[in-house]
Amino acid sequence: MALAFQRPVGRPATASRPASRRAPALRIVSAAATAPAPSPSSSASSVPASKLIDGKGIADTIRSEIAAEVAQLKAKHNLTPGLAVVLVGARKDSETYVRSKKKACAEVGFDSYGTDLPADVSEEELLKVVAAYNADPRVHGILVQLPLPKHISEKRILDAISIEKDVDGFHPLNIGALAMRGRDPLFVPCTPKGCIELLERLKVPISGRTACVIGRSNIVGMPAALLLQRRDATVTMVHSKTPDAAKICGEADIVIAACGVAEMVKGDWIKPGAVVIDVGINAKDDPTAKKGYRLVGDVDFEAAGARASLITPVPGGVGPMTIAMLLQNTLESARRAAKH
Amino acid sequence: MALAFQRPVGRPATASRPASRRAPALRIVSAAATAPAPSPSSSASSVPASKLIDGKGIADTIRSEIAAEVAQLKAKHNLTPGLAVVLVGARKDSETYVRSKKKACAEVGFDSYGTDLPADVSEEELLKVVAAYNADPRVHGILVQLPLPKHISEKRILDAISIEKDVDGFHPLNIGALAMRGRDPLFVPCTPKGCIELLERLKVPISGRTACVIGRSNIVGMPAALLLQRRDATVTMVHSKTPDAAKICGEADIVIAACGVAEMVKGDWIKPGAVVIDVGINAKDDPTAKKGYRLVGDVDFEAAGARASLITPVPGGVGPMTIAMLLQNTLESARRAAKH
Repeated sequence: MALAFQRPVGRPATASRPASRRAPALRIVSAAATAPAPSPSSSASSVPASKLIDGKGIADTIRSEIAAEVAQLKAKHNLTPGLAVVLVGARKDSETYVRSKKKACAEVGFDSYGTDLPADVSEEELLKVVAAYNADPRVHGILVQLPLPKHISEKRILDAISIEKDVDGFHPLNIGALAMRGRDPLFVPCTPKGCIELLERLKVPISGRTACVIGRSNIVGMPAALLLQRRDATVTMVHSKTPDAAKICGEADIVIAACGVAEMVKGDWIKPGAVVIDVGINAKDDPTAKKGYRLVGDVDFEAAGARASLITPVPGGVGPMTIAMLLQNTLESARRAAKH
Repeated sequence: MALAFQRPVGRPATASRPASRRAPALRIVSAAATAPAPSPSSSASSVPASKLIDGKGIADTIRSEIAAEVAQLKAKHNLTPGLAVVLVGARKDSETYVRSKKKACAEVGFDSYGTDLPADVSEEELLKVVAAYNADPRVHGILVQLPLPKHISEKRILDAISIEKDVDGFHPLNIGALAMRGRDPLFVPCTPKGCIELLERLKVPISGRTACVIGRSNIVGMPAALLLQRRDATVTMVHSKTPDAAKICGEADIVIAACGVAEMVKGDWIKPGAVVIDVGINAKDDPTAKKGYRLVGDVDFEAAGARASLITPVPGGVGPMTIAMLLQNTLESARRAAKH
């Protein structure tokens, strides 16, 4: 649930990565991934339930749909979707993410494969592991858990993953196809795909609407903007060098916030009636909470919720969608394999 | 000069391709490419010369710079940049473009290679020609002139061009790298690259400014938006489904018009002081002109010029930059070859 930015295979570390991916949030999110999640937002929320986008419920529905399709694939084609996860070293947070992915796979009937390598493994050895999964017909998706140790080139490893098994959708060939008209990527990155899936399942109109994407990371903001653009929204991408983010955001029918700064998007940034998708997950000190903190998004939930027509809570909004989309990508890959 | 949308190797035919690439404009542009171009805009223009962006002059400067570098490459590395152009069939317009490219190559000291194939050549035969150029170390850039005959898959042919020789920059791997932070494409598509080169040579600030790109084609609008975004502009892409294009355009410090509709962008769409780059080239009936028409851009030049601080004329603005950028891409490719 708390995997929003801690996407299965973490992403290339860039200067723009959300603050929430740095150490404190990682610690917290690891805890959240093993412990029961707190109920969405504060119990004292004044945002009516009718405005809440129930990401957890929708993700559960999707997982059930996937489980049913897996049963069919097994019966009809004697094929079980398989996801391989490669873990290098023994970072506690990475171990937690790998565990939740394997658990999610098991729940929908996927096979999961894993290779755990020591932190001092060579780049060549790791490439050999990737090559073996590329060649293994039982494996339909490959994730290499990031971050990798410093002596290994993440770019080289990620580019070595077969494009047919790149269930993260971050290969430049997939991103290029996402940007181009008349092309279709084999896989769409999981978190932005989850954002669009929420809009579509709730029948939020996208074509002809204005959209503002806050943040331009390779993992969320950029592909989210491309996905909205493909659906004929008029998209503006807002970032740290934008002179008047509040004004631009205030004109948008759809807001996707993925800047990684706790509650940066204020209530008065939101156009009345807008739909707000909050990708952020950040720890905020809260002496009244048992743990001394609570999880908040990149949007000031209470104030924005007063103006929005629909809004995702944090946690329980986008987070649960990410792993559901990873499972969906792996299922799609297996379906393609069944056709061939 | 008139090649703005008739990019060297024409692009995949999509529903979004600018109207100016359709038959009438093609006829005209063929003529314009062989006959001396009319002087920029009407001689009765009220736009002061100080506001005009002299694309032709800047392109001439770039060509001289390229010629000087070619001389160095020859002297130091005994290497001559080579561009291969493949022409299928005998379309008059395609023949004209191929001729102008070969002429431009000769002028800067490149070698040019050409293969002319009959209109009924098979896809397999054409792929063999591309493969031969891929393998030929004398060739640093490959263009397959589009459109291709219906029985040949443009996508399959274009994807077969080695990414190291894709001087058009339209391979999805190049577009993906253009979209991603922390990656650099091997080649940037020529027309949008020319737009940015104009802004940079004129020291127009991009970072922190707002930009509006009108049109979202694979060949101009989309890569232009990605290039502005990479330079930290806040970019909105406007298209046929945008509800209020005038309002969005009216807030932009930089406007790139590439919608392919004659004079669609009106004077009151332009924020006072904005910089306007007009990629369009369209024929407009004009009984006072010798030929009965004159060339206009996608912007109402007179009215927009009254409000803009800088504006490109049509012709003589972006057009001459496109071939200059094609030469620059080929030179870059040769330089990379010299390093290896």
